[in-house]
Amino acid sequence: MAEVLENLKSLAKKAESKMVLLVADGLGGIPHPDFGYQTELEAAQTPHLDELAKKSALGLMTPVNYGITPGSGPGHIGLFGYNPEELTIGRGVLEALGVGFHLQAGDVAARANFATRDERGIIVDRRAGRISTEECARLVEKISQEVKEIEGVEIILRPGMEHRFVLILRGEGLGEKVKDTDPQKEGFPPYEPQALDAASEKTSRVLKLFLEKANQIIKEEPKANAILLRGFSQSPHLEKFSERYGVKPLAIAIYPMYKGIARLFGFDTPEVSGDFQDEVKLLRDKWFDYDFFFLHYKDTDKAGEDGDFKKKVDRIEYLDQFIPQILALNPDVLVITGDHSTPTLLHSHSWHPSPVLLYSKYAGSSTGLRFTERECAHGYLGQFPARALMSLMLANALRLGKFGA
Amino acid sequence: MAEVLENLKSLAKKAESKMVLLVADGLGGIPHPDFGYQTELEAAQTPHLDELAKKSALGLMTPVNYGITPGSGPGHIGLFGYNPEELTIGRGVLEALGVGFHLQAGDVAARANFATRDERGIIVDRRAGRISTEECARLVEKISQEVKEIEGVEIILRPGMEHRFVLILRGEGLGEKVKDTDPQKEGFPPYEPQALDAASEKTSRVLKLFLEKANQIIKEEPKANAILLRGFSQSPHLEKFSERYGVKPLAIAIYPMYKGIARLFGFDTPEVSGDFQDEVKLLRDKWFDYDFFFLHYKDTDKAGEDGDFKKKVDRIEYLDQFIPQILALNPDVLVITGDHSTPTLLHSHSWHPSPVLLYSKYAGSSTGLRFTERECAHGYLGQFPARALMSLMLANALRLGKFGA
Repeated sequence: MAEVLENLKSLAKKAESKMVLLVADGLGGIPHPDFGYQTELEAAQTPHLDELAKKSALGLMTPVNYGITPGSGPGHIGLFGYNPEELTIGRGVLEALGVGFHLQAGDVAARANFATRDERGIIVDRRAGRISTEECARLVEKISQEVKEIEGVEIILRPGMEHRFVLILRGEGLGEKVKDTDPQKEGFPPYEPQALDAASEKTSRVLKLFLEKANQIIKEEPKANAILLRGFSQSPHLEKFSERYGVKPLAIAIYPMYKGIARLFGFDTPEVSGDFQDEVKLLRDKWFDYDFFFLHYKDTDKAGEDGDFKKKVDRIEYLDQFIPQILALNPDVLVITGDHSTPTLLHSHSWHPSPVLLYSKYAGSSTGLRFTERECAHGYLGQFPARALMSLMLANALRLGKFGA
Repeated sequence: MAEVLENLKSLAKKAESKMVLLVADGLGGIPHPDFGYQTELEAAQTPHLDELAKKSALGLMTPVNYGITPGSGPGHIGLFGYNPEELTIGRGVLEALGVGFHLQAGDVAARANFATRDERGIIVDRRAGRISTEECARLVEKISQEVKEIEGVEIILRPGMEHRFVLILRGEGLGEKVKDTDPQKEGFPPYEPQALDAASEKTSRVLKLFLEKANQIIKEEPKANAILLRGFSQSPHLEKFSERYGVKPLAIAIYPMYKGIARLFGFDTPEVSGDFQDEVKLLRDKWFDYDFFFLHYKDTDKAGEDGDFKKKVDRIEYLDQFIPQILALNPDVLVITGDHSTPTLLHSHSWHPSPVLLYSKYAGSSTGLRFTERECAHGYLGQFPARALMSLMLANALRLGKFGA
């Protein structure tokens, strides 16, 4: 199936049509024994989604592959029509995106932890007792003040939550193939940041010097007296969304990570804060400036991760209220789906397929009476891989020409 | 789809969960015009399967590919999560497994027939008038007594049904690439066992000498005066089930072939005889010693091959009675499916997808009221390739970690 979907550019046609991809993060669920064996979507009162479902094509979408639980990276890579089994976003890059850092080409990012080591150099707590976020910011600031540059490479630190922070190296000639220094369990000393290929020798040297200096600065700290690094990575080289599909894409997301992922694909990512109503307002404001809108709604995933069934139901009902406002813009294609499922029963991302609703004048036979997992299971779109979604959206937007004579 | 499913090892997590894969051989069927256009599953009274179906995820599973009728080898290769289009089990190996022979690495096995040739050496009956199984055993014994070893290679013969037997060569430096000697139609002399690559020269020499000696021994037989060989093959090199999935697997099967196939994948395969109730007893006895159980039920396929609709219905109803006993063990994941369909209307294996029922606490929305082909056709699992089943089972057993950050 790969070839033609990887080369939609060759079929792309100019059109005025507008597409909205509304991703309710972690939307899908599974029946919950404590709530009448209903899923969150089934338990929710969603008059607007139900009304829309009757006019739409429904289906179930597999984010990566059968039984595979995706992280946020692979989840969105698939939604954007790229192959999540081939294209990966490194852990360091994802962390940098998560704190809102704008990575440049060639930057090497790493996930960093403050940790505790004993007098022999053995790591006794990989999370430094989960020091407070404020404490983390203080230490990051202290190190940043003293270590700004090594061998011409700029050292950039950004604090995260609790013991977590991000390290970015910016400079010429840096490779990303460096061994994690994090031993991944307690009772061992950190590893050396060893280069795994010739192109990463300089990265490795700079990292060693950085660790020496930084560890020296924090060595008297009661808990956070060591640094562990992992997931060294650079932004992947990828074909931009606009080139691949001939669209002008805008991403509307409050959380930095999703904005960051979208930026990797070449979306414009204006600032927006507040809640979903602010996102919808931004959608309205930008409606005439773009033709592809990725609209990210985080609340469903958060409630799912918390294992809070009623909260997830509530967040679905909240989302439902905005459907008329989105439809009022008269999009040619509107898709509502998730990047993965987050059933409250599991308190986490899961492997279950995402319910998907595709609304357009040309969507095909409607079969569902409601937008639920069960109705989607026998919907007109069947079960299909997430990476086929973009081609369905473009087709429904009458933006793909005929394949072959 | 290949990469991640071929590399589940990288996601495997330790867990205490237990999985049962119940394969009712040839389970699926198609509507029969003589029986109210019902399938065998539809016609059967299956209260326990129906009850289970309401709590399970249903789907249809394609063994190899659309329209492709699998033999038992490809059928099980797919069920076990390997690619049946890439991995093959040779005809000779399958015959050896079918007679319960324990193949060692490097053994070359061949399917052998007694045949009749005329005075000119032309094969006039490829099956030697289907001599009796006893007669076959007598001749095999006679040859075995006189031909035990050639060029340091051990010659092992095992009788099969009627004119069929198995030849195994055991020794150093044997290749499997040898041309069949069976001309596949009457009116021709047998071919020479010609080596098709350099590594198989020794195999070819040993086979020529074996055929000379054996044909000499039986030359006065009235019917079985010649031997035809085909399907020279060695056990495939494959990643063991335990390494691939991090489980400890047990196969429970009465028929030698299924035990043999499972053994290739590294299953333990204790002896069990009698009928399905003995298999279920063994399952109970071994419950605490293993975590993955492949349970093979043959009767459905036999009735299908016989074209006996009522018998197949009866065998499904018999199977249904054991469902409560299996559930009483409290498996975390139970899958009930077939390795292929065997519709009685066709009297043979067929290309139709296998109905599949996946029961677990996390299986997902149930949609079916009964476990039948038609209900499975719009089940939550959709239509999926058999080789994705293992990944779904492992996911439901909470034995797969997240893919990507």
